[in-house]
Amino acid sequence: MTTTVIVGGVAGGMSTATRLRRNDEKMTIIVVESSNYVSFANCGLPYFIGGEITERSDLLLQTPQSLKDRFNLDVRTGSTATAINRQAKTVTVNGPEGNYDIAYDYLVLSPGAQPTMPPIPGIEHALTLRTVEDTDHIIDHIQATQARSAVIIGGGFIGLELAENLTKRQLHTTVIERESQIMTPLDDEMAAIVATHLEKNGVTLLTNSTVEAIGENYVMAGDTRIEADVVIAALGVQPASKLARDAGLAINERGGIRVDHQQRTSDHTIFALGDAAEKTDAINGDNIMVPLAQTANRHGRLVADIIAGRNVSAMPVLATAIIGVFGLAAATTGWNERRARAAGKNIRVIHTHPVHHAGYYPGATPLHLKLIIDADNDAILGAQAVGTNGVDKRIDVIATAIRAGLGASDLADLELAYAPQFGSAKDPINMLGFIADNAKQGEKTIQWHELDQALANGWTLVDVRSPAEFSRGSIPGAINIPVDDIRDRIAELADKKVLVHCQVGLRGHIAYTLLDNYGITTANLDGGYVTWTHGQDARR
Amino acid sequence: MTTTVIVGGVAGGMSTATRLRRNDEKMTIIVVESSNYVSFANCGLPYFIGGEITERSDLLLQTPQSLKDRFNLDVRTGSTATAINRQAKTVTVNGPEGNYDIAYDYLVLSPGAQPTMPPIPGIEHALTLRTVEDTDHIIDHIQATQARSAVIIGGGFIGLELAENLTKRQLHTTVIERESQIMTPLDDEMAAIVATHLEKNGVTLLTNSTVEAIGENYVMAGDTRIEADVVIAALGVQPASKLARDAGLAINERGGIRVDHQQRTSDHTIFALGDAAEKTDAINGDNIMVPLAQTANRHGRLVADIIAGRNVSAMPVLATAIIGVFGLAAATTGWNERRARAAGKNIRVIHTHPVHHAGYYPGATPLHLKLIIDADNDAILGAQAVGTNGVDKRIDVIATAIRAGLGASDLADLELAYAPQFGSAKDPINMLGFIADNAKQGEKTIQWHELDQALANGWTLVDVRSPAEFSRGSIPGAINIPVDDIRDRIAELADKKVLVHCQVGLRGHIAYTLLDNYGITTANLDGGYVTWTHGQDARR
Repeated sequence: MTTTVIVGGVAGGMSTATRLRRNDEKMTIIVVESSNYVSFANCGLPYFIGGEITERSDLLLQTPQSLKDRFNLDVRTGSTATAINRQAKTVTVNGPEGNYDIAYDYLVLSPGAQPTMPPIPGIEHALTLRTVEDTDHIIDHIQATQARSAVIIGGGFIGLELAENLTKRQLHTTVIERESQIMTPLDDEMAAIVATHLEKNGVTLLTNSTVEAIGENYVMAGDTRIEADVVIAALGVQPASKLARDAGLAINERGGIRVDHQQRTSDHTIFALGDAAEKTDAINGDNIMVPLAQTANRHGRLVADIIAGRNVSAMPVLATAIIGVFGLAAATTGWNERRARAAGKNIRVIHTHPVHHAGYYPGATPLHLKLIIDADNDAILGAQAVGTNGVDKRIDVIATAIRAGLGASDLADLELAYAPQFGSAKDPINMLGFIADNAKQGEKTIQWHELDQALANGWTLVDVRSPAEFSRGSIPGAINIPVDDIRDRIAELADKKVLVHCQVGLRGHIAYTLLDNYGITTANLDGGYVTWTHGQDARR
Repeated sequence: MTTTVIVGGVAGGMSTATRLRRNDEKMTIIVVESSNYVSFANCGLPYFIGGEITERSDLLLQTPQSLKDRFNLDVRTGSTATAINRQAKTVTVNGPEGNYDIAYDYLVLSPGAQPTMPPIPGIEHALTLRTVEDTDHIIDHIQATQARSAVIIGGGFIGLELAENLTKRQLHTTVIERESQIMTPLDDEMAAIVATHLEKNGVTLLTNSTVEAIGENYVMAGDTRIEADVVIAALGVQPASKLARDAGLAINERGGIRVDHQQRTSDHTIFALGDAAEKTDAINGDNIMVPLAQTANRHGRLVADIIAGRNVSAMPVLATAIIGVFGLAAATTGWNERRARAAGKNIRVIHTHPVHHAGYYPGATPLHLKLIIDADNDAILGAQAVGTNGVDKRIDVIATAIRAGLGASDLADLELAYAPQFGSAKDPINMLGFIADNAKQGEKTIQWHELDQALANGWTLVDVRSPAEFSRGSIPGAINIPVDDIRDRIAELADKKVLVHCQVGLRGHIAYTLLDNYGITTANLDGGYVTWTHGQDARR
């Protein structure tokens, strides 16, 4: 009889186990999980801390008993795999019963990751959030200390979700981030929208800040002492690959377990998946680490099918991700501009600021979209979206388009569901396609971070908004010629290089085409005044 | 100098006009529109009647003056094109100034459609909803008659949107539909969900009902007299192709103006687009009529680019559409099951009933999804979705997948944005892909409308839900063996053909794999008890 041992009983491991059973009723399937819980809702933990999820039991999706009853699985919690003997094909487990070996035919490693703990003096005072037990510790600590303040070290997804949830618990919360921006999967001008929103909701953000020391109830950020009844380290995760490394399996330079396109490690009877295993980047095929539940689940099913003898392969990953903070959503898929430029790609970038459904229907809220395009072949490299509503939808459509190999200008032809309460007859996605098509035809735009250079190179900046808009705030150096007046005032611009801009880019586009038709050298400031403002916020 | 005359100044016509101007500053562009308004928000009209949109001016997106100022367009409202002289290349216009001819180099026909008016005695009492003027008439009539009741003839998109909005105005509203179901783009068991919701919100639905006569304040449906202070005919639209027909342009059998892949009519200097022009079906290439704003806008841009000399083509259409009624959304893309079967396709059908985001996060609401797959090649033929939240997102993702040529099982690998308030780690879309993959691998399901035949053929129906669920309602003839008990009771089923079902299909799938592993002939009732119930509702 075949035995498969699975190390790790959360997303990836449990997806493997249940699919294995559906594929094969006779196989012995043993799951060892070092925590006391399997199949728990990792992504829900911050919301239990904040009180949005009120029942602790809601986090616990399965128990060893329920998995025994339904899938005849042998699930052992509180049990840590401590060694693999690849020769003997056994794994050593330290559990409530002591140490023992289990023989396997197939071994599946889905141990997850552990929070990154930097060598800061006093780091032992910092809590982390990864497991149900961690959640209990944080809540206990808040209650025991009657905490009024918190510091979160790290402004990534978990850190910001915690910032929201601790704020909801009435803790004054400070996020300390080493980089110049929070949420590094976003580009800085997009992250700035999230930062502004967090600050408006009472969170203190300290970017470009390094934690020097942590005390019982304070944190030293540089010379500044910040009161903190609770300190949480949320600096990302490290693949839990020690077991694999000790067994001599190949490990990549970021500590991830190396796998092939079928999630096989360097030992072909051992598979790895989830946060501990490397992934393949969908944009350029690089090996990358992407700790996301969706991918872990998907690869779990895949590994079970491969063990069952199907010849299937893992798809490369885009790392689509989303966060919600205080009612604002921010999402990303594929590469950001920073990464594309670092890779030396010849890119086109589009920012738009539409509303999430027809503007004439009540309740339309602003969306901020960004699309990064390979200028050599119109391929979509990545996208970002920030807004109150409709963010997930737009990123999901673009993630689907990238996966399917649609070009950026193909977005113009997508037929998306339109009624005024759901979208627009020209959906924001279609508009991105139109703009991408214009760019492909040669329409020139300049990015917000290229503006200073353009002005230095002799471009004249023309704000084509109304005088009222201009008077409420304008870009230094801009002159105001409303778009509807350009025809009559074309002579003023005849011998200039004219960089036009409006509020969001649309009237700028109209002005561009008009000037271009008159043979005037022109460019449109991408994303208009709004993107420029976000860029200024990013550089504060 | 080149002159382009555009007949029709709403979605398609105005998209053509503004894009033409951006392409060419010098061209003379004349738009003739028979109503008194251009660029108005057709899709918003029902919501102005219902009071959701409070400002009439919000419906009027542009005026002739604003279009003159920004795009130097010559827009003539209240002006009807009455004849085309193709030899002379002139179009005759009847406007406030009387009759006159305009010479054109290019003529673009975007006249839209007119409401279908069946030859019912008293049809002159029925109002219609297509223009801003129609909206005014309906509101005036409601106010003048102090209307308390309404009959809407036709249960399509406009009819149901009107039913919601008249109900919100406190009119008791009856929808009379000739077919056996409302919303024929949906299959009947999916439309039944919408029907139930409408009835729950106070709308009376009469299906399989024909209007025999209309009086001043009543409608005769068969022998039944229904009080109706307002009667609105919402039986769909007819292409406004008389002008084109009279000019000898080719017209298809449904009255649509024939066009090639570049929207050219049978006269190559005349283009047609929007509701009056035929489209190409994305699934099988047939000529079809699809009166949707999104397509009209898209084709307007396209025609302008073709006139400007670009070699671009119209994409075939999926006819993605959505409706919202009393907080419930229903959407569709591509073909429905009825159409696929009528076309003789070998199909697989999947129904699922997930929640719209992680179940453990508060506020998850039910979704009802349906996917129609070409069994010969895994191609997605169409999809339908009904639910409170997340309907538009799922249909948009599937519409994108169809457009891009992804197979149904490829949905398993889409990386969609997941945080618990936005989706699930295995999103409903991924789940459709998993189920499609299972079906591709040979997992057998039976549709709700095939159940009677299956039982007649000797299948044993086993309800694998819990005894509590079973006792709350079950399918006649089913025996109850909870999924977790099947292993122990396998002997009872050993020599039977076992049709399993659960609430939504998931535990049925687990039971299926278990029985299949034991070598028992089995099948899973697709969509489980919920889809079966919707089917019963459809047949009431």
